[in-house]
Amino acid sequence: MSNGSDLMDRLVSLCKRRGFVFQSSEIYGGTGSVWDYGPLGVELQRNVKEAWWRAMVHERDDIEGLDAAILMHPRVWEASGHVAGFTDPLIDCRACKARFRADQIESAQCPRKPSRRPGEFEDCSLTEPRQFNLMFKTFMGPVEDSAAVIYLRPETAQGSYVNFHNVLNASRQRVPFGIAQVGKAFRNEITPGNFIFRTREFEQMEMQFFVEPGTDDEWFEYWKAKRMEWVQSLGIRAEKLRFDEHGPDELAHYAKRAFDIQYEFPFGWSEFEGIHNRTDYDLRRHQEYSGRKLEYVDPVDRNKRYIPYVIETAVGVGRVMLAALVDAYHEEEVDGEQRVVLRLHPRLAPIKVAVLPLIRKDGMPEMAERIQKEFRAAGINSFYDDAGSIGKRYRRMDEAGTPFAITVDGESMSGNTVTIRDRDTLQQERVSVDGLVEFIRKRIG
Amino acid sequence: MSNGSDLMDRLVSLCKRRGFVFQSSEIYGGTGSVWDYGPLGVELQRNVKEAWWRAMVHERDDIEGLDAAILMHPRVWEASGHVAGFTDPLIDCRACKARFRADQIESAQCPRKPSRRPGEFEDCSLTEPRQFNLMFKTFMGPVEDSAAVIYLRPETAQGSYVNFHNVLNASRQRVPFGIAQVGKAFRNEITPGNFIFRTREFEQMEMQFFVEPGTDDEWFEYWKAKRMEWVQSLGIRAEKLRFDEHGPDELAHYAKRAFDIQYEFPFGWSEFEGIHNRTDYDLRRHQEYSGRKLEYVDPVDRNKRYIPYVIETAVGVGRVMLAALVDAYHEEEVDGEQRVVLRLHPRLAPIKVAVLPLIRKDGMPEMAERIQKEFRAAGINSFYDDAGSIGKRYRRMDEAGTPFAITVDGESMSGNTVTIRDRDTLQQERVSVDGLVEFIRKRIG
Repeated sequence: MSNGSDLMDRLVSLCKRRGFVFQSSEIYGGTGSVWDYGPLGVELQRNVKEAWWRAMVHERDDIEGLDAAILMHPRVWEASGHVAGFTDPLIDCRACKARFRADQIESAQCPRKPSRRPGEFEDCSLTEPRQFNLMFKTFMGPVEDSAAVIYLRPETAQGSYVNFHNVLNASRQRVPFGIAQVGKAFRNEITPGNFIFRTREFEQMEMQFFVEPGTDDEWFEYWKAKRMEWVQSLGIRAEKLRFDEHGPDELAHYAKRAFDIQYEFPFGWSEFEGIHNRTDYDLRRHQEYSGRKLEYVDPVDRNKRYIPYVIETAVGVGRVMLAALVDAYHEEEVDGEQRVVLRLHPRLAPIKVAVLPLIRKDGMPEMAERIQKEFRAAGINSFYDDAGSIGKRYRRMDEAGTPFAITVDGESMSGNTVTIRDRDTLQQERVSVDGLVEFIRKRIG
Repeated sequence: MSNGSDLMDRLVSLCKRRGFVFQSSEIYGGTGSVWDYGPLGVELQRNVKEAWWRAMVHERDDIEGLDAAILMHPRVWEASGHVAGFTDPLIDCRACKARFRADQIESAQCPRKPSRRPGEFEDCSLTEPRQFNLMFKTFMGPVEDSAAVIYLRPETAQGSYVNFHNVLNASRQRVPFGIAQVGKAFRNEITPGNFIFRTREFEQMEMQFFVEPGTDDEWFEYWKAKRMEWVQSLGIRAEKLRFDEHGPDELAHYAKRAFDIQYEFPFGWSEFEGIHNRTDYDLRRHQEYSGRKLEYVDPVDRNKRYIPYVIETAVGVGRVMLAALVDAYHEEEVDGEQRVVLRLHPRLAPIKVAVLPLIRKDGMPEMAERIQKEFRAAGINSFYDDAGSIGKRYRRMDEAGTPFAITVDGESMSGNTVTIRDRDTLQQERVSVDGLVEFIRKRIG
């Protein structure tokens, strides 16, 4: 395959053509770095979230789900440190009004003087770096004054911290336990980019695991391993994944230790998940700012009281989707023809099975429709297609990442059998219609 | 049962205690009319959304899913009419700075003179009514100027309209077909209230069905019937549901005809879903404002071109949740003791089955855990509980709305059987452990 930027271009084009990802408000020229998920994209997204929720909430006794609102009390962001510190340093040019991130000025170029090399700004009129907050600000109630200022959350995590006692009391959990959330967050990034990798509106899957201080290092290692395991369970190739530890200069103000899980995207190794030891920073700050005790009292030894440490795992839905799409994208020759195939893991595939009558007569469409109904009743997302040659229909399903295609043909009528084509091996197997649902169910686990 | 406000109080209290709904940012005194969903609430919410998605997208050939972003191009809201017309008329008091909705001034009371009757404002200094826009406004990019103004969407519908051609082309659908979305929307309501009924941040499930002009009345009737059917499939009692048609004065500017589905809440009959004939208003306006053709060309007769009419079905997730909770809430006497039970439909119940060892020894916990593992593997949300008397544990599951409780007792060990208790009938049935998963699966469908 050719170079990275080529690959990204072809992936973006496939995503639009097949309905994975559209640019937001495209008919109006688009909204900067905001994307809409189309019919296939929304299913891929649902499957990513479902796999995460299942692994983190339903299959565990020690994690509770939560869905906190996007709009929170403004004091939350004072306590968390976001009002004071969630900023990017920016430099303006007084002459041409261009704006640059101070930490990227050396590779930036004056837009008025494109002949210059990056970082050459001698006779420009640059300001000193100034801090700009990355939180989107809005106003609640009809008056726009500072009393009514409210922020779009830049992370879901704070919703879990301020609900620590609510969840603890309602669920009767004991430390160690976690709170898991999936939801939108917003960051007014100055230089977003790389398709759905860095966007101003994005969805997070975050889990805060509350532990006794002193056990945090051990739990940190546990979650590091668990999260890598999960990514690989989505079929993403191990050789494209690595850990990257934050150096002392990179650590967030609240963090004792932090690792990223990186994927080798076409634009280089980049983070899509972080595992952070946030210590007791957040709970301690909320205790201070709210005046409400946020300590944990051990129910057995009531003299044992402490503010728990938090191990956080935070991953972006869009980034997992992009990693899965990049990892699955293949171009190859089949029978002298080029095909594009998305080798998505069956758990992630938007459509699990296509049901295709070979031709539009002799009872084949009716039989195919009956089969599709059975998949529907079983809650398996299927797709009926009778338009065009069977080869063309297979190719369309390859591009959509559909792992199995069932064809109803002449033999189906007499023998009550169909063929099942495997997207990756291209093998076709003839199986009985009875037990078809179970056959597919086992393979899409 | 006593009066409506009592019932709401008790429901709100149950919702907090059992982890359905918490006030947002409660430790900071709360955020006005914004709510967080706790461990049980988030599961109820997921089940409502899943039931809708299944009925509207997965079980149909003619509806495609979409997940458009919350942040859209500001021109979208000029085209839709929201910038000019999505307003509430407000009246200020210049003296005491109180603010009232003009259409509710007759029942409002001066906060400084509580002895007065509602509507008495003789010597107050009221302004003329002024229009305030209900859209939340924010700024994209680091500079707060009018060029960067962007809105939090007040409805998901516009995302479907601006993506009409994107979805049509990617999906190869033909009119009539629909686009379905589930997602957050925001309205800066002046007087929100009634718990999770009217909130400033809320989640919608909206479907836009594109039809040929002239067939719209027929499709309107179709969707009216379909949507009422769906609500009833969630187990909500038919006698608590009714249609309410918008009179000529109530119709939105884009609507030819509109029906609400109302539920009899403790605070009166109120809308939780709307079915609207939005005509070709939205597509026509977007065509005009974007300069892009938004007509449909019939693929068979290419001379047949038209801007489709839209039948919209729009329902609030929180409102369905509230209707389901209110409808399910019962207080009754069992064996001389008071119990609170949520008779939620098994499809909506957060936990489908509880697995309870009668006592914490003789191998009962181990057997119960083995059984729970089987439910997990089958993707059926279950809950293991061994704390407290069996009666107490049953009551906790009644309050959580769990339809089935499996008890592992002394007989279980020898005979490989358990008892299954039905939440509603209180009947206990002894069944074999083999086939337990299928037994439950059939009943929660």
